[in-house]
Amino acid sequence: MDEPVSAGDRDLRLGDRARIEDLFTAYAYHFDRNEPAEVAALFTDDAVVDYGPEMANLSGRHTIESGVAAGLRDIFTATSHHISNVAIDFIDETRARAVAYVYAWHRYRDGSPDGFLWAQYHVGVRRRRGGWRFSEMTLKAAGSTDFHRSEMHPIGRNATARG
Amino acid sequence: MDEPVSAGDRDLRLGDRARIEDLFTAYAYHFDRNEPAEVAALFTDDAVVDYGPEMANLSGRHTIESGVAAGLRDIFTATSHHISNVAIDFIDETRARAVAYVYAWHRYRDGSPDGFLWAQYHVGVRRRRGGWRFSEMTLKAAGSTDFHRSEMHPIGRNATARG
Amino acid sequence: MDEPVSAGDRDLRLGDRARIEDLFTAYAYHFDRNEPAEVAALFTDDAVVDYGPEMANLSGRHTIESGVAAGLRDIFTATSHHISNVAIDFIDETRARAVAYVYAWHRYRDGSPDGFLWAQYHVGVRRRRGGWRFSEMTLKAAGSTDFHRSEMHPIGRNATARG
Repeated sequence: MDEPVSAGDRDLRLGDRARIEDLFTAYAYHFDRNEPAEVAALFTDDAVVDYGPEMANLSGRHTIESGVAAGLRDIFTATSHHISNVAIDFIDETRARAVAYVYAWHRYRDGSPDGFLWAQYHVGVRRRRGGWRFSEMTLKAAGSTDFHRSEMHPIGRNATARG
Repeated sequence: MDEPVSAGDRDLRLGDRARIEDLFTAYAYHFDRNEPAEVAALFTDDAVVDYGPEMANLSGRHTIESGVAAGLRDIFTATSHHISNVAIDFIDETRARAVAYVYAWHRYRDGSPDGFLWAQYHVGVRRRRGGWRFSEMTLKAAGSTDFHRSEMHPIGRNATARG
Repeated sequence: MDEPVSAGDRDLRLGDRARIEDLFTAYAYHFDRNEPAEVAALFTDDAVVDYGPEMANLSGRHTIESGVAAGLRDIFTATSHHISNVAIDFIDETRARAVAYVYAWHRYRDGSPDGFLWAQYHVGVRRRRGGWRFSEMTLKAAGSTDFHRSEMHPIGRNATARG
């Protein structure tokens, strides 16, 4: 093997994969540290975030920052977002779709029992001059317990009749 | 550094690592969406799955598909499998052993309390024409709560007497 | 694209990233199997571990081994450490800082309720002849429930007044 990376590996775009994984990692890190400006900086100017049917979409980086800031300030005293299962599908040189699982723990300001969420981020990402950014994010839940939102977008599990 | 990837990095087989990680990610994704055919397609024709001592081994892709389908249909209304800690040990060009941690949440059809599992998939993987596939999978549990199976293969923690 | 890995990807140091991720994976694996010598072997001779303000720092590989061994023997009957969100910042060829999230489940020898921890490892790593090793590790907690330690280093979440 003289070629360090095979032709098939080129298609894998390992560098872009790592950078897109880093984007999810940065999102969780800044969210959990209550740094809304740093969270918003991970999105394109015109990005749209859909956290669920009970909440209006956040459209544009500025609205994302203020929406995230309000939630972090009013609802939680602590959170921890554990990201895994990142799957990336490249559309072209500058665009990709990705799914990441999140297991999120939430401690509430009002003393409610800790909220747990088992969910997925379905995102669009774009590469601009400054690197990869989220252009679109939809949160879809497999399930939750004691979570502050009761209606969530579903992950799309196939319904099967029993027996 | 003129060489983009060092000799040591070649040994790491970063492309194969990414593809094997993708295999675990796809397993969780299709399992949680109740897509047994897509789960089974990740295994070799002659693969063997051992989910624990209370259940007969699933031998062959067809049996894996029907076994997984029955569980997904009869036992759960929702699941979420969070994969992490993937360790890969390459045997040769087309074979590897891997371990992945899984934190799995289960909601039951019969209304039982949610089941939690902290476990490891110990797998053999093989590269065939269509890419890497699981040839063997054994589930080993560190522990569980309210899980529908009471006996599981252990992860092999060393027993130590106290004091 | 004739170059398999772009200039930007060289800066990513994908091989070193993979090896540092492997270090966290090995730490969890050997910890959960109660293998303190294998855990300690992941640290430099002069490494320092700070698990929190209630416990003296563990200084040097030998002290790390005995400290980890005592905890694994006296406190737990089972643990599972799920690592994710690994962020790496290279300082130079042989040194880096990294943060990894950990979701850890603990079953206690004394029959106390299972302890849960949502936390981060903040580490320094160094490359020596034998590869990358932890030279420093500080555990910082986002939160916990029923954990055997009540005081932990915080992750540094910004405090925000409500309203």
